[in-house]
Amino acid sequence: MQKFDYSKTQNHAVGIVDVARWEQYSQANDFPFKAMWYCIPPGGNSPLDQHPEIELSLVMRGEATVESGGTRTVVKQGSAFLMSTTEPHIVHNTSDEPLLIFSAYWMPDGVVEGQP
Amino acid sequence: MQKFDYSKTQNHAVGIVDVARWEQYSQANDFPFKAMWYCIPPGGNSPLDQHPEIELSLVMRGEATVESGGTRTVVKQGSAFLMSTTEPHIVHNTSDEPLLIFSAYWMPDGVVEGQP
Repeated sequence: MQKFDYSKTQNHAVGIVDVARWEQYSQANDFPFKAMWYCIPPGGNSPLDQHPEIELSLVMRGEATVESGGTRTVVKQGSAFLMSTTEPHIVHNTSDEPLLIFSAYWMPDGVVEGQP
Repeated sequence: MQKFDYSKTQNHAVGIVDVARWEQYSQANDFPFKAMWYCIPPGGNSPLDQHPEIELSLVMRGEATVESGGTRTVVKQGSAFLMSTTEPHIVHNTSDEPLLIFSAYWMPDGVVEGQP
């Protein structure tokens, strides 16, 4: 059994967002996806993001308001949201506690990373 | 954007454990892993489990005490634990609130499902 302790991760700041990528764990190299935690402070938001990877996000702490396709959707702790390939999105923390998200992401079938 | 709302899942009971498998979501059929939520009430535990799939578990709510290899490891909300293929494990909820876990699981490379 291997434990991944969020309180002991190597984090780095991307603007106001605190990011802990799972590349820091050798075991994660064998996963069929890449992963990260990220934390957004109260009142903050992630930058506009758009990428070829499909991304499944789990709300670990707090409450996310996800902006995508012109709508905003509240996703509460315990629930999840999925971004399709190249779907632009912004994650807002409209709550008064830190928003912690675990994200797993992978390339869609048939798309070779780095190719147009 | 697709939301997966834990409060609206189709759950089923496995003993005292409440299980919501992601096969109920058509989008999850294209994931490179299978997934489920499961919830263990305070003072309860999962049955002894052992399976060929590698399993990554995220503690969404509460606190897990994971029994494996003769030791018990506390995993707090926001953190995660990984089970290797065929590693026996029991998850205890020694806290006074429900323990909600999201689990992603997949077969190790080179192992064909259903083969010895």
